[in-house]
Amino acid sequence: MATEVFDKQKTIDLRKKYIGPSCKVFFNHDPIKIIRARGQYMYSEKDEQYLDCINNVAHVGHSHPEVVSAGTKQMELLNTNSRFLHDNLVHYAQRLQATLPEKLSVCYFVNSGSEANDLALRLAWQHTGHKDIITLDNAYHGHVSSLIDISPYKFHQLGQTEQSQHVHVAPSPDIYRGKFREDHPDPATAYADEVRDIIEKAHAKGHKIAAFIAESLQSCGGQVIPPVGYFQKVAQNVGGVFIADEVQVGFGRVGSHFWAFQLQGDDFVPDIVTMGKPIGNGHPMSCVVTTREVAESFMSSGMEYFNTFGGNPVSCAIGMAVLDVIEKEDLQGNALRVGKYLMELLEKLKEKHPLIGDTRGCGLFVGVDLVKDRLKRTPATAEAQDVIYRLKDQKILLSADGPHRNVLKFKPPMCFSREDADLAVGKIDHILTGTHSRAKYSLYIPLRGNEDNIYCLAGDGCKNK
Amino acid sequence: MATEVFDKQKTIDLRKKYIGPSCKVFFNHDPIKIIRARGQYMYSEKDEQYLDCINNVAHVGHSHPEVVSAGTKQMELLNTNSRFLHDNLVHYAQRLQATLPEKLSVCYFVNSGSEANDLALRLAWQHTGHKDIITLDNAYHGHVSSLIDISPYKFHQLGQTEQSQHVHVAPSPDIYRGKFREDHPDPATAYADEVRDIIEKAHAKGHKIAAFIAESLQSCGGQVIPPVGYFQKVAQNVGGVFIADEVQVGFGRVGSHFWAFQLQGDDFVPDIVTMGKPIGNGHPMSCVVTTREVAESFMSSGMEYFNTFGGNPVSCAIGMAVLDVIEKEDLQGNALRVGKYLMELLEKLKEKHPLIGDTRGCGLFVGVDLVKDRLKRTPATAEAQDVIYRLKDQKILLSADGPHRNVLKFKPPMCFSREDADLAVGKIDHILTGTHSRAKYSLYIPLRGNEDNIYCLAGDGCKNK
Repeated sequence: MATEVFDKQKTIDLRKKYIGPSCKVFFNHDPIKIIRARGQYMYSEKDEQYLDCINNVAHVGHSHPEVVSAGTKQMELLNTNSRFLHDNLVHYAQRLQATLPEKLSVCYFVNSGSEANDLALRLAWQHTGHKDIITLDNAYHGHVSSLIDISPYKFHQLGQTEQSQHVHVAPSPDIYRGKFREDHPDPATAYADEVRDIIEKAHAKGHKIAAFIAESLQSCGGQVIPPVGYFQKVAQNVGGVFIADEVQVGFGRVGSHFWAFQLQGDDFVPDIVTMGKPIGNGHPMSCVVTTREVAESFMSSGMEYFNTFGGNPVSCAIGMAVLDVIEKEDLQGNALRVGKYLMELLEKLKEKHPLIGDTRGCGLFVGVDLVKDRLKRTPATAEAQDVIYRLKDQKILLSADGPHRNVLKFKPPMCFSREDADLAVGKIDHILTGTHSRAKYSLYIPLRGNEDNIYCLAGDGCKNK
Repeated sequence: MATEVFDKQKTIDLRKKYIGPSCKVFFNHDPIKIIRARGQYMYSEKDEQYLDCINNVAHVGHSHPEVVSAGTKQMELLNTNSRFLHDNLVHYAQRLQATLPEKLSVCYFVNSGSEANDLALRLAWQHTGHKDIITLDNAYHGHVSSLIDISPYKFHQLGQTEQSQHVHVAPSPDIYRGKFREDHPDPATAYADEVRDIIEKAHAKGHKIAAFIAESLQSCGGQVIPPVGYFQKVAQNVGGVFIADEVQVGFGRVGSHFWAFQLQGDDFVPDIVTMGKPIGNGHPMSCVVTTREVAESFMSSGMEYFNTFGGNPVSCAIGMAVLDVIEKEDLQGNALRVGKYLMELLEKLKEKHPLIGDTRGCGLFVGVDLVKDRLKRTPATAEAQDVIYRLKDQKILLSADGPHRNVLKFKPPMCFSREDADLAVGKIDHILTGTHSRAKYSLYIPLRGNEDNIYCLAGDGCKNK
């Protein structure tokens, strides 16, 4: 079935000609051409099989037949906007709501995580009448202009440091590499107090906080798992709404819960939850869920909210199929079990290899923090890039992220198996065991890329450094 | 095949419970439930057939089998992000480029017209190093926060008039209802001079213009067709880039050309073109095309541009199928022929009914401006709403838009036929001929809704006035 229209070099040439040069490929010096995929496996034009450890969008597995079938059936019938009544819209909203605390009951369907987070800001601004946003260091919330402003992961890339006066950056609650670490008696309170200080300084300048926004687990920021209780303490002080960005980590990935914010405890419920990537298994769709109170405030502005494609019957059919498959195949349970197993394997690897400074994870959201020195925790950036490139040669797709691009990042399709974990960790073990020229590392210039790691060989036509 | 999950009242109840109240339905006092559609026809849960004169998203016809098939085949194979090489991405970019002037050669694929216009602003800001944007009065460019700021159609809805100091609003080049009319010897120059004056005033304040943005034909603004030569004259003075927003009007709708900006003449080429609605026949996708020069400037910031869903193989397959169908079924030619025929019918109707002040159109983009008084051109807002509601009773879907919501707006699927035109115009003739209580008009409160008209019966639970 899958065939090439162009040979690989022609594809590369056409891409250079017609696609914006800011749009990067994985493995710039030797990018991969993929022509089909199924489950957790992707296949090149030469039919080489790659194990996908990174695609959190293909949540229930690449090209899942049940999802494809749901999309096809609905496309054959009807795909139109939400100004007409349709059962899929309300049925899907009802089903999504059932996964959330009762208070989070009103849905807005949009097309991407970026649209979702932008709408979340609009809801917060309108509901509070305030302007200021508190975000976490190293956060990534999306690519539209309002979100670049609140994404240090992105705006740190720009030479100019002209940060909006309405945006405040709080320290990332990273207990391995951050200001307060695992030896601190109460890091949750300590990090929350940092936010409180920011709020007080903003108030002193006459500013008021519209929202605190955080990924429930920081992904691009380096697979950071905030200490339990941190979100509650922040919420108490914020004087605005709490936006939990679940774009990368929602839909059962953390194993023990359906939503990652639930790791903070039952006593924490955000005011707004944004969803994205995994929601449609690759279909462009997304959702914002909020409280009736916030929704009524937004309504009271008198401005309609209309999104041409958002909530169309095809997107909703696909979204429901994804929920069905998660349930039928117990993918949340699988994430819990395989994630635990993967962590055990990685813990053993850590005992063996001093390059591994920390392993952390919840379900199939796992980070391996590589360090040059365990005491100083010096990020082993070049080494991480080397591991990634060597894994690619072994047909394993893994990425490295975080502010230092030294954290190996597992976020595979949720059908990832114990055998897959064995294979990936075995290959890492082999790479870390082997000896090879350190000189090579200097060739890899890590970029401040995006929510996935991007790197290129110096002098390989890549101007971003 | 198509069946209901819930009865209509239950659908309405669930919608009230789970969907943001800012998301409006058509015909609020008696919304329509649609469960299937094909070509230019939509079908209710009772299998009533509606003629769709408004859906410019279902461009090649609702549920076109060739588009559905292309989407299905690709979904079965692979749907992943553009960090892997894939032929669909580059092939589609190549094919889109072939419809445009040579200079417009670099594509960025995104998920919606809003994402496209936001990216266009980012490109303009980065390329020029300037901040200010000039937009047209009554313009609508999207729903993300950066675009609300440049959409008078939207921000006029807000009580507060806190307009960004970096946004300048030029008069809409409307030669029927605007500042300079059809009797002006050179309206193109007169309207362009207005923009020049704005630029000079901005410069005097130390501001510099990043971009002038305009829909190639204003749609929500009241089906406005700018005088030929206007865009060229604006472009000469702007000192920033020219963004042509083709989200509503591109892809052959105007009949004589594939892109509506081409109506201005061969000597006009914008720096950035944004696309949307019709591009995927309902599939959430969109594109920004710009020059190599602008693309290189954007690249030089050092910031990667990554869009999770944008340019995925499924979206590109669907986009190519849409281009195929437009060509195979000569839909651009059909738009030219049927549009001309529709205009002739409407011209005759204008001779007969004094309520019609103006008819204007290009291809299947047609407006009928209803007036209470032909000399004063007083907008017949309530009458327009009445016509729309009566047409709905006759199973014809039409909308009314423009700043006064008095312009009947045709923008049907491109397979719209002469018979469809006869039917719709015949029904309008009948409605305008019939006598009925004018008192009823006062019940319809037109909203400043969105890019389509929204209205509701006063007291019908609708707070937006």
